[in-house]
Amino acid sequence: MTMATSTLSIDQHRLDCIQACLDCARICNTCGDDMIGMDMSNEDGQELMTRCIRLCRDCSDTCILAAQWMGRASALSLRLCAFCVEMCELCAGVCEQHAPHHAMCGDCAKECRRCAELCHKMVLESVPSSSGGTA
Amino acid sequence: MTMATSTLSIDQHRLDCIQACLDCARICNTCGDDMIGMDMSNEDGQELMTRCIRLCRDCSDTCILAAQWMGRASALSLRLCAFCVEMCELCAGVCEQHAPHHAMCGDCAKECRRCAELCHKMVLESVPSSSGGTA
Amino acid sequence: MTMATSTLSIDQHRLDCIQACLDCARICNTCGDDMIGMDMSNEDGQELMTRCIRLCRDCSDTCILAAQWMGRASALSLRLCAFCVEMCELCAGVCEQHAPHHAMCGDCAKECRRCAELCHKMVLESVPSSSGGTA
Amino acid sequence: MTMATSTLSIDQHRLDCIQACLDCARICNTCGDDMIGMDMSNEDGQELMTRCIRLCRDCSDTCILAAQWMGRASALSLRLCAFCVEMCELCAGVCEQHAPHHAMCGDCAKECRRCAELCHKMVLESVPSSSGGTA
Repeated sequence: MTMATSTLSIDQHRLDCIQACLDCARICNTCGDDMIGMDMSNEDGQELMTRCIRLCRDCSDTCILAAQWMGRASALSLRLCAFCVEMCELCAGVCEQHAPHHAMCGDCAKECRRCAELCHKMVLESVPSSSGGTA
Repeated sequence: MTMATSTLSIDQHRLDCIQACLDCARICNTCGDDMIGMDMSNEDGQELMTRCIRLCRDCSDTCILAAQWMGRASALSLRLCAFCVEMCELCAGVCEQHAPHHAMCGDCAKECRRCAELCHKMVLESVPSSSGGTA
Repeated sequence: MTMATSTLSIDQHRLDCIQACLDCARICNTCGDDMIGMDMSNEDGQELMTRCIRLCRDCSDTCILAAQWMGRASALSLRLCAFCVEMCELCAGVCEQHAPHHAMCGDCAKECRRCAELCHKMVLESVPSSSGGTA
Repeated sequence: MTMATSTLSIDQHRLDCIQACLDCARICNTCGDDMIGMDMSNEDGQELMTRCIRLCRDCSDTCILAAQWMGRASALSLRLCAFCVEMCELCAGVCEQHAPHHAMCGDCAKECRRCAELCHKMVLESVPSSSGGTA
């Protein structure tokens, strides 16, 4: 019996982007969970932290899905990658604001920015295949 | 305002285990997808590949969830870790059988074995906290 | 002690949309799995089925996430809802083509169209809150 | 071309169990999110709510995965179903404690108990197929 041929080629750039998404998902997941139940002592702090917890969780969801789709021959993987850029930027912005009150938010924001950058490159480099798929 | 205190400490061992789960999820996800639509030319080969595709997908699901729960203060994270050991061993066994027909299955089986080993250690080392929690 | 006030109001329209997403995810999940390993007897049939399996899986992923985000105060839930419309339309189109060879694809396509329609309404009705959030 | 034969038969009992898991996931997802940022005014209340938020999120994760695996020919679907029983019971217990402070927790606990019951029956009725598979 012959060895079956792979239908999916995953180049180094794609691998780096997948890894950045998984790294970002990992820290967002822990960062958001770590804030649950923290006492922020005033209403403004509480409101900022609440937004931060929710964005970290949504960003983790998005990054995991983007990593999975990029690792498969998913027709809309690049479209999801573009969505992931936006999600990461949004999360990074709020984590940066919250970093003075929660150190992990500083590291989390950095991973979000890095993930956004790699996803953005991924989308740009794939422009000719306008459908967003891996074919 | 004071810096809030983290409620979750994630040591190196746990980090390694989380990373092993994410690595395993990544290759299972790609390996399973890569086999979809491959022609196995005989019924036995087809049946083995079908089982392999399904196990890769289930193993990817399990590893991602285990990684997420270990990165949070999830009450049953060690219980899920123990479940992950079993899932990874099952997937590794079938991927090893299928490796002569699909090279990626060989690499996938190795990551599954490695993930199973790290999850197993994680469970053993945490025995005194019998509840399975991170607290 | 007083009863805490909910920050999230989920109206009937949103509930219907969440339920449509879960229904769609459920059938896509089963439909895609059911096709794995089926023998399509010719290359064109095989290629169509392969695309169909992948779209069903991606559509299931998307619908589950959309349902979860609509059920939470997720900042980008409407943006994801709009993405879900596209994903469902794409999946429905291919399932319709494949329905003569796999009866479940016919039912699956109907749920995809219904989910797309409810998600589309959800997005339209929420236009004034341009940020896409549930506030 | 002939119509391909389904490899998976999903009976009414399984359908009910899948639906119970999705219902439970939906309310846990909303209930947990709704508590984020609520002020519990004392340390004991805060600690109970923190546990409740985390269990709701983990229970939602588990129920969604159990629903998906039961809807596919997943080898360990019944094992996951058994895990889901435990997760739901744990979440129900804490939600019941927290219900006096958050009305949705009362409804959430009921769905958790119902899901646990249906998953438990599912496991019991499938005992002869000791491997836990759907095959």
